[in-house]
Amino acid sequence: MLDEKLLSIHQATVLQQWTLKQAIEGVARAKLGAISVWRDKLKEIGAAEAARLLDGHGVKATGLSFAGLVTPPDKQAAAKARDDVRRAFDEAAAIKAPAVVFVAGGVDPGEKDVKAARGRALEALAGLVPHARAAGVMIALEPLHPMICATRSVLSTVKLANEWCDALGAEDAVGIALDTYAVWWDPDLEQGIARAGRRICAFHLSDWLVDTQDLRFDRGMMGDGVIDIPGIRRMVETAGYKGYREVEIFSARNWWKRDPDEVVRTVKERYQTAV
Amino acid sequence: MLDEKLLSIHQATVLQQWTLKQAIEGVARAKLGAISVWRDKLKEIGAAEAARLLDGHGVKATGLSFAGLVTPPDKQAAAKARDDVRRAFDEAAAIKAPAVVFVAGGVDPGEKDVKAARGRALEALAGLVPHARAAGVMIALEPLHPMICATRSVLSTVKLANEWCDALGAEDAVGIALDTYAVWWDPDLEQGIARAGRRICAFHLSDWLVDTQDLRFDRGMMGDGVIDIPGIRRMVETAGYKGYREVEIFSARNWWKRDPDEVVRTVKERYQTAV
Repeated sequence: MLDEKLLSIHQATVLQQWTLKQAIEGVARAKLGAISVWRDKLKEIGAAEAARLLDGHGVKATGLSFAGLVTPPDKQAAAKARDDVRRAFDEAAAIKAPAVVFVAGGVDPGEKDVKAARGRALEALAGLVPHARAAGVMIALEPLHPMICATRSVLSTVKLANEWCDALGAEDAVGIALDTYAVWWDPDLEQGIARAGRRICAFHLSDWLVDTQDLRFDRGMMGDGVIDIPGIRRMVETAGYKGYREVEIFSARNWWKRDPDEVVRTVKERYQTAV
Repeated sequence: MLDEKLLSIHQATVLQQWTLKQAIEGVARAKLGAISVWRDKLKEIGAAEAARLLDGHGVKATGLSFAGLVTPPDKQAAAKARDDVRRAFDEAAAIKAPAVVFVAGGVDPGEKDVKAARGRALEALAGLVPHARAAGVMIALEPLHPMICATRSVLSTVKLANEWCDALGAEDAVGIALDTYAVWWDPDLEQGIARAGRRICAFHLSDWLVDTQDLRFDRGMMGDGVIDIPGIRRMVETAGYKGYREVEIFSARNWWKRDPDEVVRTVKERYQTAV
């Protein structure tokens, strides 16, 4: 049996059904104690009200998703994006979430230079570290699947996340969010996770469906796809991670259409049988 | 100006419009001299007739796509798949195509073990080398995009292709097919290509569209996406590759719906402006 105290419901899993208030209530109703907060939902009520609701229901915020998209070559646009990331750190601090999930940003279609975009993302991160440190929040670098490299994240592998961590030299403020869906295919996953070690500050779970129909919103419930989720969990835990297991299922055709209480119930079941 | 003699039209680019006979005629009509053959189309007329048509029109077959899918855990299914790959070697020899593009196969949904699937693919390859050698055909290992790892190819990176080549120790019979679409996102692409060096025995071109809508059949014409195709071409050529540039655009919503002569004309134009 896995410890249910370490199960966190990522709001992305019930994104279309519940507001943040409803999600906190739903999590509490399911006798769970943790939620990972979706930032757009947080904005609807504000961090102060969210903090009050979390405290009131005894639910802990395990993370805030997401901030980033700092890769535009246009200097003004990039500065604006960095300011927004700083606001996310403050929001996370206000709801006592230990980490902000950092999504780097994509490739500029005019520039067509993924390497340049990576360079800018790393440079932006270096400038963001002091604010994260001051807010007492970790920047959780999340390698995302190469299929969204063009539009969402040029950080495509655990290896590159480790290289960025090395370059930043700020282990107290920069960690890695590991998402089974984004990394399961990586031939060097085991080495990458071992090297990441205690840098891993968040662990996201979902499954890869064989008949995947969308590049972003067609994730599967643990057990419904081809990912060896228990195997990856063991790698992550062997590396030293002892934190929450956040279930994050973007699913436009299935889970977003279901009764959210049923979705949470299913997550609880699969947490014991497929994680 | 790039040498038009090195431009090969991959049949996948006009897959829905032309039979192999029509494609050979279309290539000749466009005053081009090379085609990469799609195996299902070859089967419609047989290798002997295809060879006659190619010779008759002075068109060279630069490759045969594809054979593989050797990862099933079921021994009989895997043996059948390997037999089919051997037939592909003979077909390639018959049409004087120097290489067969090898697509490894995916992950078994019951087994959920990408590592085991990779092990079986490598083992199968070792058993296939003698037949390829006898037929005088290269096995072109094609790393494919991680988004089709579950269903089509557990060979997901150039690094892994290099590792398989190292393990097989059969440089005369096993090379690497490098496809811009499959590898452009890889942070270690430059090192991977340099290490591959003269292993690279095929070079496939297409572009990644920002608004990609399908995991397999939504590739873009060179210049319409975010890939730095000239940059990758230079890496490949610096590594020692001097062969054909095969344009392979699976495009259900666009290029497959157009007049195929217009598609070939566009390929010829973009070959000079975006390759």
